[in-house]
Amino acid sequence: MAEADTPRADADETVAALDIGGTKTTAALVTRRGVVLDRVTAPTPGRAGATAVLDTAADLVRQLRARAAGTRVRALGVGSAGVVDSRTGRVLSATDVLTGWAGTDLTGRLRQLLGLPVAVVNDVHAHALGEARHGAATGHDTVLYVAVGTGVGASFVAGDRVLAGAHSAAGHAGHQPSPYAGSLPCTCGGRGHLEAIAAGPALAGEYARRSGQPVADLRAVAARADGGDETAREVVLLGGAAVGSAVGGLVNVLDPHAVVIGGGVTGLGGPWWGALRDAVRREALPVLADVPVLASALGADAPLLGAASLAWKDAE
Amino acid sequence: MAEADTPRADADETVAALDIGGTKTTAALVTRRGVVLDRVTAPTPGRAGATAVLDTAADLVRQLRARAAGTRVRALGVGSAGVVDSRTGRVLSATDVLTGWAGTDLTGRLRQLLGLPVAVVNDVHAHALGEARHGAATGHDTVLYVAVGTGVGASFVAGDRVLAGAHSAAGHAGHQPSPYAGSLPCTCGGRGHLEAIAAGPALAGEYARRSGQPVADLRAVAARADGGDETAREVVLLGGAAVGSAVGGLVNVLDPHAVVIGGGVTGLGGPWWGALRDAVRREALPVLADVPVLASALGADAPLLGAASLAWKDAE
Repeated sequence: MAEADTPRADADETVAALDIGGTKTTAALVTRRGVVLDRVTAPTPGRAGATAVLDTAADLVRQLRARAAGTRVRALGVGSAGVVDSRTGRVLSATDVLTGWAGTDLTGRLRQLLGLPVAVVNDVHAHALGEARHGAATGHDTVLYVAVGTGVGASFVAGDRVLAGAHSAAGHAGHQPSPYAGSLPCTCGGRGHLEAIAAGPALAGEYARRSGQPVADLRAVAARADGGDETAREVVLLGGAAVGSAVGGLVNVLDPHAVVIGGGVTGLGGPWWGALRDAVRREALPVLADVPVLASALGADAPLLGAASLAWKDAE
Repeated sequence: MAEADTPRADADETVAALDIGGTKTTAALVTRRGVVLDRVTAPTPGRAGATAVLDTAADLVRQLRARAAGTRVRALGVGSAGVVDSRTGRVLSATDVLTGWAGTDLTGRLRQLLGLPVAVVNDVHAHALGEARHGAATGHDTVLYVAVGTGVGASFVAGDRVLAGAHSAAGHAGHQPSPYAGSLPCTCGGRGHLEAIAAGPALAGEYARRSGQPVADLRAVAARADGGDETAREVVLLGGAAVGSAVGGLVNVLDPHAVVIGGGVTGLGGPWWGALRDAVRREALPVLADVPVLASALGADAPLLGAASLAWKDAE
């Protein structure tokens, strides 16, 4: 990382990046090399409607611009919760956490509020772009990013583009049939999908089914596994293997240069990762079995850096 | 099809296309609009080595050029069996049917033999490109093509490009974990993959296991199903559902504008297709459940037209 020597060498020109999530919104100023110069966060007023959310987001960007006098802000990149049409800049659908978010013209309204060119993308894609351009998978041409958290999502990055899909719905890797999921009901209304066995709430549910002991969440399962509870350990390994099996299958279809895994469930640590990597190797064709399977490296900065990389494309 | 009125309107300029398969090789002259003006086929001398195969292929192209005096041949597009690196034009690996095929510099040697610019691609990708540009999925921007035959392969076409993959190995959709495959051994050495339950030989094997009656091939199963054999009918439906389940999962990941299904197993007809389409709808997210699932329309011309479309890119 040569640029680490001079992190602010290109600080006179930046883009702004927004990560609009269900609970909080973060804005940042980011250099062309992917250095975050400044960031600020506020709670997302999700229940107050789209106008309140956009006003909050715009205010955060204005705060950063006010603090960075002398720095030119060239464009704005936005990673947003919900299904986003990157071509029109509109939110196509969103969960109830963001009231009235579906239908919002993110590009048009933020351009109006801030007077900047605006590029928008779904937050999973933003995360993937960040890891591909500046994080765990820097230098890899095509990257499969899989996020394992309260759901299971994914994004396929090729060069500086994400695969958006015909309905802007590409990346729903949690809704693949999984031999590990049996006939468990999935959040989508289907059955037997990866998300139904491998997401955080799904693993907590599986522990409760196996042990007869309800637990509050995956954290409780992790604590029991650490404490020597055999059933909890089995469930942790099951979750890793289920994700790895699906990832191995996708590696055979996409043949990416690298795979990056992120999301809260990765916090289960070594045993989960071991089961995941074993399963990838078991499923992948021999020629593909050595695909790098990397841990997300940028944390909460990933979607900001991904959104910023889109903004830089717009600014060029 | 406006061009159907004047199929030879652009016949003064063509490209040559080659489809080099394990048992036969076909050459064709193809116009920019995707009309095959002439074609010729010969057995592939696969056991005689790469030089014999290339000489046969080059001879076929020479025959066509001799028959088409006055027509300019601009370039050559090749769809070849085996794993092909489209960037270098080299065969990376191939089955034993083509002795010594792995390692062959297809681009360099055919350029030398024929004096034309040469573009090469794997035959499944060539088939997919043909259907996307001139066949069942004409006008669709991104297309998932799945071939179900003696194996199960796939190709993802975006615009005029196929997803080749880091090792030129993208598209191995038969090697995804399938809940329908249990722990059946797969041709790749793995277990429980789609190909192990849904390919032609796999379905014949499944019929034999269920009925206790060995059959020569899938054709025999189809005949029994037509004759009212309940077990044969179940196996046909199982095969369609297994493919559809995997396709539905891939639709959720790739969100293609259209899906095209080809390969010999599609000949099982209506019940197989019905089970496949039902499974796609069952697995796909509601917003994606109406993705068109189309039958391959070009038959043996598909790889020729796909290879030709690559050659036209080269010629421009």
